Amino acid sequence: MDFALSPKARDFSARLSAFLEAQVLPAEAAYFKSLGGGPGPWKVPPVIAELKAKARAEGLWNLFLHDPDYGAGLSNLDYAPLAELMGRSLIAPEVFNCNAPDTGNMEVLVKYGSEPQKAQWLGPLLDGAIRSAFCMTEPAVASSDATNMAATAEVRGDEVVLNGRKWWSSGVGHPDCAIAIFMGVTDPTAERHARHSMVLVPVGTPGMVIERNVPVFGNFDEPYGHGEVSFTDVRVPRENIIGGPGRGFEIAQGRLGPGRIHHCMRVIGAAERALELLCERALTRVAFGKPLALLGGNGDVIANARMAIEQARLLTLKAAWMMDTVGVKAAMSEISQIKVVAPNVAQAVIDQAIQIHGGAGLSDDFPLTAFFAYARILRIADGPDEVHRGLIAKLELRRHAARLGLPKG
Amino acid sequence: MDFALSPKARDFSARLSAFLEAQVLPAEAAYFKSLGGGPGPWKVPPVIAELKAKARAEGLWNLFLHDPDYGAGLSNLDYAPLAELMGRSLIAPEVFNCNAPDTGNMEVLVKYGSEPQKAQWLGPLLDGAIRSAFCMTEPAVASSDATNMAATAEVRGDEVVLNGRKWWSSGVGHPDCAIAIFMGVTDPTAERHARHSMVLVPVGTPGMVIERNVPVFGNFDEPYGHGEVSFTDVRVPRENIIGGPGRGFEIAQGRLGPGRIHHCMRVIGAAERALELLCERALTRVAFGKPLALLGGNGDVIANARMAIEQARLLTLKAAWMMDTVGVKAAMSEISQIKVVAPNVAQAVIDQAIQIHGGAGLSDDFPLTAFFAYARILRIADGPDEVHRGLIAKLELRRHAARLGLPKG
Amino acid sequence: MDFALSPKARDFSARLSAFLEAQVLPAEAAYFKSLGGGPGPWKVPPVIAELKAKARAEGLWNLFLHDPDYGAGLSNLDYAPLAELMGRSLIAPEVFNCNAPDTGNMEVLVKYGSEPQKAQWLGPLLDGAIRSAFCMTEPAVASSDATNMAATAEVRGDEVVLNGRKWWSSGVGHPDCAIAIFMGVTDPTAERHARHSMVLVPVGTPGMVIERNVPVFGNFDEPYGHGEVSFTDVRVPRENIIGGPGRGFEIAQGRLGPGRIHHCMRVIGAAERALELLCERALTRVAFGKPLALLGGNGDVIANARMAIEQARLLTLKAAWMMDTVGVKAAMSEISQIKVVAPNVAQAVIDQAIQIHGGAGLSDDFPLTAFFAYARILRIADGPDEVHRGLIAKLELRRHAARLGLPKG
Amino acid sequence: MDFALSPKARDFSARLSAFLEAQVLPAEAAYFKSLGGGPGPWKVPPVIAELKAKARAEGLWNLFLHDPDYGAGLSNLDYAPLAELMGRSLIAPEVFNCNAPDTGNMEVLVKYGSEPQKAQWLGPLLDGAIRSAFCMTEPAVASSDATNMAATAEVRGDEVVLNGRKWWSSGVGHPDCAIAIFMGVTDPTAERHARHSMVLVPVGTPGMVIERNVPVFGNFDEPYGHGEVSFTDVRVPRENIIGGPGRGFEIAQGRLGPGRIHHCMRVIGAAERALELLCERALTRVAFGKPLALLGGNGDVIANARMAIEQARLLTLKAAWMMDTVGVKAAMSEISQIKVVAPNVAQAVIDQAIQIHGGAGLSDDFPLTAFFAYARILRIADGPDEVHRGLIAKLELRRHAARLGLPKG
Repeated sequence: MDFALSPKARDFSARLSAFLEAQVLPAEAAYFKSLGGGPGPWKVPPVIAELKAKARAEGLWNLFLHDPDYGAGLSNLDYAPLAELMGRSLIAPEVFNCNAPDTGNMEVLVKYGSEPQKAQWLGPLLDGAIRSAFCMTEPAVASSDATNMAATAEVRGDEVVLNGRKWWSSGVGHPDCAIAIFMGVTDPTAERHARHSMVLVPVGTPGMVIERNVPVFGNFDEPYGHGEVSFTDVRVPRENIIGGPGRGFEIAQGRLGPGRIHHCMRVIGAAERALELLCERALTRVAFGKPLALLGGNGDVIANARMAIEQARLLTLKAAWMMDTVGVKAAMSEISQIKVVAPNVAQAVIDQAIQIHGGAGLSDDFPLTAFFAYARILRIADGPDEVHRGLIAKLELRRHAARLGLPKG
Repeated sequence: MDFALSPKARDFSARLSAFLEAQVLPAEAAYFKSLGGGPGPWKVPPVIAELKAKARAEGLWNLFLHDPDYGAGLSNLDYAPLAELMGRSLIAPEVFNCNAPDTGNMEVLVKYGSEPQKAQWLGPLLDGAIRSAFCMTEPAVASSDATNMAATAEVRGDEVVLNGRKWWSSGVGHPDCAIAIFMGVTDPTAERHARHSMVLVPVGTPGMVIERNVPVFGNFDEPYGHGEVSFTDVRVPRENIIGGPGRGFEIAQGRLGPGRIHHCMRVIGAAERALELLCERALTRVAFGKPLALLGGNGDVIANARMAIEQARLLTLKAAWMMDTVGVKAAMSEISQIKVVAPNVAQAVIDQAIQIHGGAGLSDDFPLTAFFAYARILRIADGPDEVHRGLIAKLELRRHAARLGLPKG
Repeated sequence: MDFALSPKARDFSARLSAFLEAQVLPAEAAYFKSLGGGPGPWKVPPVIAELKAKARAEGLWNLFLHDPDYGAGLSNLDYAPLAELMGRSLIAPEVFNCNAPDTGNMEVLVKYGSEPQKAQWLGPLLDGAIRSAFCMTEPAVASSDATNMAATAEVRGDEVVLNGRKWWSSGVGHPDCAIAIFMGVTDPTAERHARHSMVLVPVGTPGMVIERNVPVFGNFDEPYGHGEVSFTDVRVPRENIIGGPGRGFEIAQGRLGPGRIHHCMRVIGAAERALELLCERALTRVAFGKPLALLGGNGDVIANARMAIEQARLLTLKAAWMMDTVGVKAAMSEISQIKVVAPNVAQAVIDQAIQIHGGAGLSDDFPLTAFFAYARILRIADGPDEVHRGLIAKLELRRHAARLGLPKG
Repeated sequence: MDFALSPKARDFSARLSAFLEAQVLPAEAAYFKSLGGGPGPWKVPPVIAELKAKARAEGLWNLFLHDPDYGAGLSNLDYAPLAELMGRSLIAPEVFNCNAPDTGNMEVLVKYGSEPQKAQWLGPLLDGAIRSAFCMTEPAVASSDATNMAATAEVRGDEVVLNGRKWWSSGVGHPDCAIAIFMGVTDPTAERHARHSMVLVPVGTPGMVIERNVPVFGNFDEPYGHGEVSFTDVRVPRENIIGGPGRGFEIAQGRLGPGRIHHCMRVIGAAERALELLCERALTRVAFGKPLALLGGNGDVIANARMAIEQARLLTLKAAWMMDTVGVKAAMSEISQIKVVAPNVAQAVIDQAIQIHGGAGLSDDFPLTAFFAYARILRIADGPDEVHRGLIAKLELRRHAARLGLPKG
């Protein structure tokens, strides 16, 4: 294992960190204050466009994209510390055009998109001119089991007709959201992993209705939103199917690997910032004649947080390094491991940071509850903890069964 | 220890439970939908007034008040299952006129209020005609250490002049909130526990400004609110001091004992309902060909929740029973114990219920995130976990030091 | 729920506590020193006989036996605090003739034994003149699933022939152990719960061989032992079958309910004493200029232990009270709950007590590692945690399924 | 961070692993059976000498020693996987002459020893001809605070006179133990870190008495032992002071860094083997018609163990890499982190492995309870968890205080 960064990544890291401290963090308070609250529709505070322009001018743009023809050409390992830095601020990912689900959607288009699809949608996404959504999860079934998916994408002549109800379509509430990727069943009689298709649907296509934005702990994640979207006889050209009919499951798998790990990196950044805020509060707030840092078990809280973050970060690096060196499939256990570990560690650390802040920690005077919501979502999104634990156990047992010469099963 | 309920309490319990299931729970969804969201000002959906009238007509009213001249005359133990039932719904406490901080404020007025104070404020509170707030916690200091309090209540001739900034003044955002109890330092040179006064301040008194309602995980607890309130040279008659100058600390102590345990009872009700919702979801949602209840570790989750709730409830009953039989002072450790245990158990159970619900658990389609916020607040409000653990340890060690004949210290 | 003790139990409790402090605890150190160590055979230090005689003379004898014709006639609830007191010392249960598995064996004989069986074995057991063993668990199969049992008890004419290998036959290593109860399959074709028989086997019957005593964390639980015992064509008269052939499962169920809860009570006593030792050490040992009690998170450790023990005790009382008032079957969930909670709480508290004692805690200078072994065994014996959690979940889900009108399954 | 092994280390790792599987693990059962049990004196089963000879012949010898003049010349990082492999068996470290405390003692002699000291003691230790002990911890004081040390090493003319009582002098019970390093106060008036000396004391010097071997959970760690040793006017030549008087604290610090991390590596090996045993048992034992692996939460247990071990291993590698690249002082937090994490992770995983094994897990049929004892000791030895957490918190807070420009304190 070699977790050393390339010189290019070290350079990005230094510049990104400087930009973040000088430009992004200071803009946070005003940004959040200027948001109106509530379930939408929303406006994007103008500071975002300004910061995006500056970041792009400094080359801090599309850092997530491995393909050097489209993005920074960094490995997963090299991108890890950059994503972690972006995770320190909830507005940073958009500033650097590295926001989910746009990142995953761009990767899909780079890898599976036709030239016309790329021209029409990838270009503007790479420019940060438009945003996108990903419509996969459904309210009516346990989406942890992908075979439960009920939505349909039927090919009828030159068209594909979409029906179904999706939710947790993150980003669909953004005023610039122009395109969604919809996943549905095309051929229910096909082999289990060849039934689904991914279809590009321009936002505004008749029959596609954003029913509401779903709050998370009362937080709408404004101005992105987590939309509940109904699709009723939505018709788009057959060419909008990405990679052709029946490849939805394959694309989803390819999309989720890096997507999961990006989330993990970011949420570790959030945890690290929460620990900073915790220590700052503990050093400066006084009770019973001492700074909180010196009272009771608070030192243990800090030590435990440091150990947990440190380990989660190392595990993320390992998973990234494996994805780079042996591929997503061979890194399956490690990706699932970090998908469980990172948000759980982050949730616990952020919860402790809230506790040390007292009532202030629960308010929106600090980014702590928003971080908490992000970590909490991640324990469900892209596969709940339970499914990932199940996969880790299965792979572990399979290895031992092979060692012991037991029959598969 | 005898946790048997009196016949009166058993009767109340049966009727309250029936009322709750038949009238309150069915009204919840429409109630929450009709709230506008956002930071206020708010309106109270009319269903509350209707439910209050019905509840009062059935004698399910002011059940918390031990004093039979003013309320139901129940012991703490007898009130426990009633409070737990009310905790099953976030709107129930107001329906039965048992909502904090009104409960604590009414108890203070019953016990320490002058006849004019009772006439002017206690009457309307007992009728549910007005609501009230309690202004103690301050944003600028660690309020876990009561001696940190910076607000002042200076007696000048016939008046008392209030200055300071308070927050987490729960209930102050309610349109019917007419009176606040303000705590401030009257004589900084007095003995440590004789410095403070409690003062009745009519909402609207010049100089008292509700600066904002503070969100909790983005939730404003509408239409009650957790207000940040500034007091600038607020002048009220000297007669508004409850019990006379210098008795603030004593009153606060007396107020917090029962108040804490009421919160614990309610939050156990919330945990119990969360477990119900969890089981319901686990029984009816299918993944990988089975109901979630039969998958992986979900059975353990359910068993652990059951054991934790069961124990927390018994500990609450013990604390209540001790308050009734040996008094608040002798029950100090038990009150602190349940103040730590109940919200932590509830937070964990509710978090698990959210997890089993998947994305829906994070949304406001279920009361789970609102319950979570309630439990999370309780780990800070009325003394953070850390302070209560410290007290429990101190009392435990004191007992052993005495047994061993060690010097005090 | 009424956890108040009867006057008789209060009297026993006071006298037992006094006897324990004055006679038993002071004898512990010499007792353990006089044990030779190692896998046996062992001698019983003479102090035990002396203490037994004194205890019996004071009427502190057979307190566990509900049946007033044979024992103290106490309810489960009344016995709880007595068992907890006995749990404070690993030698106390024998002193008061309340040691497992003799207690369960005596209960079985009282309830199911024939008059000749009672005359021959129950009498001497009640006198403390002999000891006994219970041979149920088997090494070759997962005994958590009772249907796995492989040992056989075949009725052949006037005899019953026993074959099989048992282990964790606790008490079989005691020099006074004269009788064992053996459980085996009599009719493999019978209904699942009517296949087994319980058979009385005098120790020394040809074919019954104590292969070894099994250590627990290196501790042989001398002079009782946890024996591995082989039975090869062991023949005893048919009359030695308790209650007749095929009733083994029924008797085992009846035996395990009270047995489990007695263990829970005792292990709570062990936890309570561990917390005492922890506090004593924390108050008297100094590091960095302060008693350990005042350093870092040690106060939290103490508070958490207090809360956990308190809750476990209340849950035990509830389970005992339910057994007394609604019976073992209706108390099944509560018995399983306490069977999980009590040893886990005890293990954690004892582990913390060890930690505070530093190296001394790991040694046999304190009873902590022996207490630890006792708690650790209990997480496996009489049904492992996993089986009890499974049962709790099943009963919980069944209740909700009924409430929701779901089909059984 | 670059955790890649050198080619030399990769070669050692492959050969060590092969040797371990082929020679050491198969010898374990007979070895442990041939130990007599009890508190000593002990004999070393002859298989050890045979295995040592073979290991040495294959060059698998003194792998821990960084100094290429004396040992394998590996970095800490390179040694990590070798130590982990050795941790898989409790007899492996001696087989490869890499057993504590000999390793630390040899390092001390290499670094601080005079030529005569090296000739007399280092040579035989490097050859595995003798063994050694380290006498630092004291029974009468909290040794977590090094300034508590009461033993004295007074220089009187040409001699140094030792007095005091030590325990947890590991290895002192080994029949080949020929030399001990004793730490005592030489000049109580000197600066706090210049008071102590380390003195070489040949075992058998008059006045040095091994009072007993202290059991750990009843396990004497035969044939090494954890001795309690009294020193009464023990006189050795002044030249036996290592590095000269007053350097004891400095040497202890230098000794403990690598020693701690070696323990961590080994205990991770123990945890990894415990997980192997757990999986093997879970795959091959059947209850309720299924292998245990597929029942209830057992998959979660396996997944959690995998994640915890993986993270602990990565953190160990990071600490080792930092020791190699920036030195022990700069790696202080990481060393303390892994010193807390590794044994706690191992204890939890081993406890779970015990649980899956049922009663067998508690017996000595499996190495699980011995592994448990090793992990449990480590939470106390070489600084208890509490002290390490305190240090981690202090360093974390210091960093934030510097960032915020707060005064030191």
